[in-house]
Amino acid sequence: MYAVILAGGSGTRFWPLSRKKNPKQLMSVFGGKSMLQRTVERVLPLKPKRILVVTNTLQAEESARQLKAYHKECRVDIIEEPVGRNTAPAIGLAASIIARYDPDGLMLVLPADHYIVQEEKFRETVQQAKKAALNGYLVTMGIVPSRPETGYGYIEAEMELRSRGPYPVKRFVEKPNLTRAVEFINAGNFYWNSGMFIWRADVILDNLMAFMPELSAALARLSFSEDVWELDDLNLQIESIYQDIAGESIDFGVMEKADNVVVVPAEFGWSDVGSWGALPEVLEPDPAGNVTINVMEKLAMDAEGCLVYGGGKLTALIGVKDLIVVDTPDALLVCHRDRAQDVKKIVEELEKRGLAEYL
Amino acid sequence: MYAVILAGGSGTRFWPLSRKKNPKQLMSVFGGKSMLQRTVERVLPLKPKRILVVTNTLQAEESARQLKAYHKECRVDIIEEPVGRNTAPAIGLAASIIARYDPDGLMLVLPADHYIVQEEKFRETVQQAKKAALNGYLVTMGIVPSRPETGYGYIEAEMELRSRGPYPVKRFVEKPNLTRAVEFINAGNFYWNSGMFIWRADVILDNLMAFMPELSAALARLSFSEDVWELDDLNLQIESIYQDIAGESIDFGVMEKADNVVVVPAEFGWSDVGSWGALPEVLEPDPAGNVTINVMEKLAMDAEGCLVYGGGKLTALIGVKDLIVVDTPDALLVCHRDRAQDVKKIVEELEKRGLAEYL
Repeated sequence: MYAVILAGGSGTRFWPLSRKKNPKQLMSVFGGKSMLQRTVERVLPLKPKRILVVTNTLQAEESARQLKAYHKECRVDIIEEPVGRNTAPAIGLAASIIARYDPDGLMLVLPADHYIVQEEKFRETVQQAKKAALNGYLVTMGIVPSRPETGYGYIEAEMELRSRGPYPVKRFVEKPNLTRAVEFINAGNFYWNSGMFIWRADVILDNLMAFMPELSAALARLSFSEDVWELDDLNLQIESIYQDIAGESIDFGVMEKADNVVVVPAEFGWSDVGSWGALPEVLEPDPAGNVTINVMEKLAMDAEGCLVYGGGKLTALIGVKDLIVVDTPDALLVCHRDRAQDVKKIVEELEKRGLAEYL
Repeated sequence: MYAVILAGGSGTRFWPLSRKKNPKQLMSVFGGKSMLQRTVERVLPLKPKRILVVTNTLQAEESARQLKAYHKECRVDIIEEPVGRNTAPAIGLAASIIARYDPDGLMLVLPADHYIVQEEKFRETVQQAKKAALNGYLVTMGIVPSRPETGYGYIEAEMELRSRGPYPVKRFVEKPNLTRAVEFINAGNFYWNSGMFIWRADVILDNLMAFMPELSAALARLSFSEDVWELDDLNLQIESIYQDIAGESIDFGVMEKADNVVVVPAEFGWSDVGSWGALPEVLEPDPAGNVTINVMEKLAMDAEGCLVYGGGKLTALIGVKDLIVVDTPDALLVCHRDRAQDVKKIVEELEKRGLAEYL
């Protein structure tokens, strides 16, 4: 099995900590290791043959630096995208490389910026999913929902068989409103679409050919060295073929169209950590619901539900509620928790104003 | 006329910017000059014979450094108190020194940490007050109230004469509740007690002898050098007599008891800048009521009534209202504007926890 880690995201919702050169997945959001490093460490016990990290040219150097220490245990290769084109091209690239070397090799596809609480259960789920993948299915990990979340897409499964799964996928559903989300939870056969997949390289390539012929044709132009893993030359070719590739998600491009998709129920404490607002879910708040990260000392008087990512300072909160405060050396964010999604708008505004040094 | 500037305050309500060694009056709250420097510059056009700055030993060095440049225009002497004992002892000290040199010299007493908008009008008011002071009155500047403020003490004047003042003072009133404050405003003969005074040195010393005999006796123990202004030796003596001196305000100790008190109406845009919450009053807010100081760039989305004292950073506000955010190199404060008075409680808590490096 090969692990493919999608690490090219820009993480604008985690501004100002997340920057173009140091996005969310390269950050030490939880103190200590970065999310990318945690993702690598999570798969190492599965003994993957290789780990492929698909990332952005801007982030390649820092990614390589962070992953150097793991080479003793498993070779980690970095594939550089000149620009982000969503997940389908990134997955197609990785599949092309793996297939050249090991045509029916299994690919475990993982975003680099997800948070998982129970890592052992995660690996058990992967093991369970492998069987279906070896049999030619496109397997997606469906998170057993713990609440009627409106921020995630859902997967409806056909669960008549009452087995432990995998289950055939009936349909993918876009982010629902609250009423529908509650219906999904009550129905019992809906899962959160985690964006974590497992399949054979040849199977996903066949599906790309069927449903995304343009991407498939562009990928076919890649010419490999004798040594497939000689990626320097390949990275140059990627730069050229990416000119012609349209951005598309693997969900929309393949998963929603293919007929061999199954879902493996997953229950290991998961969050896509989509914005600052998600951190209190995955970190342990104090009794008043405050979470502080990278804070030297905390003094809170009548403070509730606040998240402070500090600059290693003493932090004092007085009479404040549901705030996100992020303090970095050159930028300070103060945001209501309900507006965490709007942080990306600040990044857009910075771009518009040409304040590139803050991006 | 001698200017006496009371500069020994600790300014704990302006934590974390205000620290023991660098309190509010030494800070550049408004960018540029410190409040102490602004106070000195405000009196220089009045051509005082000398300026006496009464401050705390801890702050003496920084005060001297900030005032060095003014010696060309007017000699500035620094009197050091080993500990703060409120305004009466500080004023008594200054009066003792001035009286030794110039017994019926006029003393203009000014706190170092007040904000005044119209400085020329301030000086006109001083000129008007001087006459009454020369005639042996204790003159206090009463600010014509612009709103029913409950955070200030009031002075009730006897205004039957319909002159421009000074008016005899009927009584001093402690901070009122809102109902009473409204009554005061409607009555028309109430002024805010600004803590700015003018009187002859011999007159205030006589009053100290009458109403604060212990302080008066302690001050009488001071022995002056041939050159009255040789303050090094005096500062040592102050350290010894301060052991026996009780803390008391000049308002309670003298003004509320003396019968020769008059008030000069003052209308020059004044604030005692008592807490972070007062800054939006004296600084120009943007149309949404936000004030930013020491901020590199500001991006505000649905932000209202916020005060940000930044660390020279870009600051982004999203969906927040009535917040005070103060960012310093080692401490960050986030406080609801209605709780600005509680900042001093954080300072007390820091003392209790022994976190002296943040005081």
